[in-house]
Amino acid sequence: MAIENRQIVLTSVPENELKASHFELQVTPMPQASEGEVLVKTLYMSLDAANRAWMRGPSYRDAVVAGDVMPTFCIGLVEQSTDTTIAVGSIVETEGVWADYFLVKGDSLKVVPNTQPLSHLLSVRGIAGKTAYFGLLNIGQPQAGETIVVSGAAGSVGTLVGQIGRIKGCRVVGIAGSEEKCTWLVDELGFDAAVNYKSGNLFKDLKANCPNGIDVYFDNVGGTVLETVLYHMNLKGRIVCCGAVSQYDSSNPAGPRNLPGLVVVKRLRMEGFIAFDFPEHEAKADADLASWAANGSIKVVEDVVDGLENAPEALVGLLNGENRGKRMVRVASS
Amino acid sequence: MAIENRQIVLTSVPENELKASHFELQVTPMPQASEGEVLVKTLYMSLDAANRAWMRGPSYRDAVVAGDVMPTFCIGLVEQSTDTTIAVGSIVETEGVWADYFLVKGDSLKVVPNTQPLSHLLSVRGIAGKTAYFGLLNIGQPQAGETIVVSGAAGSVGTLVGQIGRIKGCRVVGIAGSEEKCTWLVDELGFDAAVNYKSGNLFKDLKANCPNGIDVYFDNVGGTVLETVLYHMNLKGRIVCCGAVSQYDSSNPAGPRNLPGLVVVKRLRMEGFIAFDFPEHEAKADADLASWAANGSIKVVEDVVDGLENAPEALVGLLNGENRGKRMVRVASS
Repeated sequence: MAIENRQIVLTSVPENELKASHFELQVTPMPQASEGEVLVKTLYMSLDAANRAWMRGPSYRDAVVAGDVMPTFCIGLVEQSTDTTIAVGSIVETEGVWADYFLVKGDSLKVVPNTQPLSHLLSVRGIAGKTAYFGLLNIGQPQAGETIVVSGAAGSVGTLVGQIGRIKGCRVVGIAGSEEKCTWLVDELGFDAAVNYKSGNLFKDLKANCPNGIDVYFDNVGGTVLETVLYHMNLKGRIVCCGAVSQYDSSNPAGPRNLPGLVVVKRLRMEGFIAFDFPEHEAKADADLASWAANGSIKVVEDVVDGLENAPEALVGLLNGENRGKRMVRVASS
Repeated sequence: MAIENRQIVLTSVPENELKASHFELQVTPMPQASEGEVLVKTLYMSLDAANRAWMRGPSYRDAVVAGDVMPTFCIGLVEQSTDTTIAVGSIVETEGVWADYFLVKGDSLKVVPNTQPLSHLLSVRGIAGKTAYFGLLNIGQPQAGETIVVSGAAGSVGTLVGQIGRIKGCRVVGIAGSEEKCTWLVDELGFDAAVNYKSGNLFKDLKANCPNGIDVYFDNVGGTVLETVLYHMNLKGRIVCCGAVSQYDSSNPAGPRNLPGLVVVKRLRMEGFIAFDFPEHEAKADADLASWAANGSIKVVEDVVDGLENAPEALVGLLNGENRGKRMVRVASS
């Protein structure tokens, strides 16, 4: 095993746009496990828009502040263990950091089956899959024949929301940031339609593609896209509040001007959630997602960037919408 | 019976602030009932912030446009009837208009018991009562010991929300627009605390008066008050979206800048509704409200303005927050 460890630190918190220059790669001595600790070798690190939101202040977790080694949800391999319940060689999922190796308490990680491919543990069978599944089905509660719109449609969660919506017999319309992505969503992933919010015609394009209005809106972006979608919501529609990525890079975010007015007159329900809110449904979700991926009902789209050192650029690129499907960094092979 | 009828027409739709000069009182011949129609003598007309919202566009009802006799929810007495199911002399509740007399189809009105006082049919046992009851209990779902905040606290719905919240064992904090109203809410209606949003210290005042955060926010106003309350919401908090009166007089409303961001990170639920959404619970609601009013658990606060001709000023005053409790116009005695 190496005697040095690489780690990437957030050296300053961005006021507006996050850039790779906000991070610095440092070389440190290899950490040593104390009593109850486990040394984990990082295999795959999840990149998520939420990583940027963490820098904005405390939320369901502490804020990420200047000087922190950047945290991440990841898949790793146990290299050393002083916890008798965690065997060396186990595959684990845990919150870790942007580093080749890191220490965690044994009781804060979860040993998982050595699934093939391992990357599915971060995509269809990981947080992205659970977020799409629980957000759409438990919060959005779509009925067959209803119309679902999802923003960030070409992203990790959006690609799955659309495909699960189709499985449930709904009309699915994606919102994405280029014509090319829109074509891909329809041709490759089976969306009924997709509209490019950068075309400047979002209001009209949604109207044309949602002739029966919108029953469920799965919102990954907030901002003006949310404002525009709200005008097309049907009475008693549901808005799944999953993210607000359009606002994360701004020090002065804008609120949709029709909130809460349209929530009142259309009797809408807007509800936030995270993927860990439904432990009692976890097993069913995993079984459904695994079987849909195995039988081809869902195409699993992964966007794997190689090399720890490329994580900053990869996260910035994600926030700019350059990814297709689930972006992750492969730090090492098991 | 008179041979002339007075009615009040909305002569132009306000772009911003509604004024009494947007209305005109007209004298017309007494309407005559055709087949299936009923002639109703107006007794009490409900004044609601929603009346202003109706002028902003279609919602759960058609928009009110220039030239319309102003619609209203009201209590009336049947003067003539060509509908064999509706007896002359019946007390009815119905959508009517700002007029001494008006015609309606017999099948669109509801005969109600001759409750004493009749005004309760517009306050505690009318839309205000049902709105407070269903909004707080069915949408907000407060648990004993939780903290409820209600804006527009001195209004028709707010006074009831606070008192129902106390009955359910919650800490209740009102938001109102003057020190005098705040004192009254605490001393007369039993609110645990009340804060004046015009003091300029709403953020701090809420923090001081909600030491355990806010679990349920009953929102009658939207805008910056909603934005400020959102910062104090607890995880999994519920926002009952009842109205957005701060926005109704504006042609360029402002959206809370922390929406939908805080809905996501705090996993909040925001939900709109109207009082008619719960027909299966109507009987229980009416029984509860009637008994609470009868046994003094609820003080019914009514603000009765006499005279049809005073309706425009009374509505403008309501939008400016000059009322205490349920404002209505007494047009005639039964």
